[in-house]
Amino acid sequence: MPMLLPFFALLAAAQAAPAPAPKPTAAQLAAAAPASAWGLIDAQDLLLIDFADGHRSVIWLASAFAPAHVANIRTIARSGWWNDATVYRVQDNYVTQWGDATEKKAPAAGIDRRPPAEYEWAWDAHGVAVANPYRDAYASRTGFTPNGWAVAGDGTRQWLPHCYGMVGVARDLAPDTGTGGDLYTVIGHAPRHLDRNIALVGRVIDGMGALSALPRGTGGGLGLYEDPKQRVPIKRIAIVADLPAAERPAFEYLRPNAPVFAATLEARANRGGPFFTVPAGATDLCNVMVPVRAVAR
Amino acid sequence: MPMLLPFFALLAAAQAAPAPAPKPTAAQLAAAAPASAWGLIDAQDLLLIDFADGHRSVIWLASAFAPAHVANIRTIARSGWWNDATVYRVQDNYVTQWGDATEKKAPAAGIDRRPPAEYEWAWDAHGVAVANPYRDAYASRTGFTPNGWAVAGDGTRQWLPHCYGMVGVARDLAPDTGTGGDLYTVIGHAPRHLDRNIALVGRVIDGMGALSALPRGTGGGLGLYEDPKQRVPIKRIAIVADLPAAERPAFEYLRPNAPVFAATLEARANRGGPFFTVPAGATDLCNVMVPVRAVAR
Repeated sequence: MPMLLPFFALLAAAQAAPAPAPKPTAAQLAAAAPASAWGLIDAQDLLLIDFADGHRSVIWLASAFAPAHVANIRTIARSGWWNDATVYRVQDNYVTQWGDATEKKAPAAGIDRRPPAEYEWAWDAHGVAVANPYRDAYASRTGFTPNGWAVAGDGTRQWLPHCYGMVGVARDLAPDTGTGGDLYTVIGHAPRHLDRNIALVGRVIDGMGALSALPRGTGGGLGLYEDPKQRVPIKRIAIVADLPAAERPAFEYLRPNAPVFAATLEARANRGGPFFTVPAGATDLCNVMVPVRAVAR
Repeated sequence: MPMLLPFFALLAAAQAAPAPAPKPTAAQLAAAAPASAWGLIDAQDLLLIDFADGHRSVIWLASAFAPAHVANIRTIARSGWWNDATVYRVQDNYVTQWGDATEKKAPAAGIDRRPPAEYEWAWDAHGVAVANPYRDAYASRTGFTPNGWAVAGDGTRQWLPHCYGMVGVARDLAPDTGTGGDLYTVIGHAPRHLDRNIALVGRVIDGMGALSALPRGTGGGLGLYEDPKQRVPIKRIAIVADLPAAERPAFEYLRPNAPVFAATLEARANRGGPFFTVPAGATDLCNVMVPVRAVAR
């Protein structure tokens, strides 16, 4: 069973004895970094989706970039508005979407029904800890903010990219920006043409399989589940900070300010070891999302 | 239920009356193209995977680019070697892999056990019908061959890109290139760092959901199914040309030589209509794979 991946290959090479030490991978560099290289994610910025079948997905909310939408999302979660929510759309190589499939519910009380278009901001509004040295198909500049997000832009404006696992706010025609009651995540090749056209509000950092491995829908050319029975029931959507302390999962991100961060980019662009014979010499922004790990709290 | 996609939006805009005609989408341009813009895919180049549960995936084999591996694949299919094959690995945002999970089977009779490294070739070996005008993160030049494949390269060498749905040959350490007995397809953001390191032999053109929507595995950090009972049984893998005529599915590709083709690229880079407010002005190669459609035969 050929494994296609360097993991076993490195293992085999290591066991084969007096070979030079293989070049460390990005994952190995991150794992060896000091504790100070990792930052704890605020429990106010962690959104849980607990599915009726027991699966759980965890979303890191981009509260610094889309504060009005994230405020709505916290309000919606706390109101119980999502208690009968479902996944109602799964379009292959595009998005999984959840919320109110009926389109009949009144919006949750207390939300901003017309949040501003939180699609872009000044290039240095959140700082850029590390410039990405590699070319991007969609933006003239890319990089990573000190608070742990990959960003794209042009040196004047900056925005979040629609990478795999990023979470956005479904909307109707502009100037509607969506309330946050219906959300989607990217489950295929990054549809970066959506950048700056929709509010991105987070990133799935755990349990992505619960959203990506769902049966594809067949309705409307949009992956809608045509039979309501296909919809995937959600038991609860909650902000982690609202849970009893003992029930709160915790996650850390690798700080882009940490010296190791730039080394992980290089390690992904030029992979070593006996598996890769031609290094790419480059890496797409969506292939170098900021490393995240679960931690005991 | 905000739909997030321009389809309903265009419909709504059209119904709202005296608006200017919306800019046609790439799909609309392709659908309006004359029959001569479409080329029939050779039934020798179509590989079916029929799953035990009734799902079917169809792979277009890249026989012009990887002839030795594709010859092996045809031989393996005809030998019945895959009659007890399973999907044994599904790694989120990476690959689904199938073949011989036991690692114990002798190779199929009559195959080349050490096929050459069909990883790259001269830039103009297959012609380039259309240069892709947009920037690529991994290659200095990209384009489309007259026989219907997206290609990357540098003007001297050319290779196939690891886009969503592309099919490659699992292998152990180089110089092993794999026989074709174990194959994988990309189910996430394009892992283009695999380009030129593995033989790509095809593209899933129908039934991708049967491969992408499978439960993710948990073994070895590689998405392996740890319990053999999780493996997804395959009933048959066959070359379409070997089926009775009445049972042969047929597919066409939009010829990159057809004048409409370049227009579809532009339409994807600068999407019109009332949904998109900021056109990307660019498109990643993996977001403009050559259009394919099923046809009656």
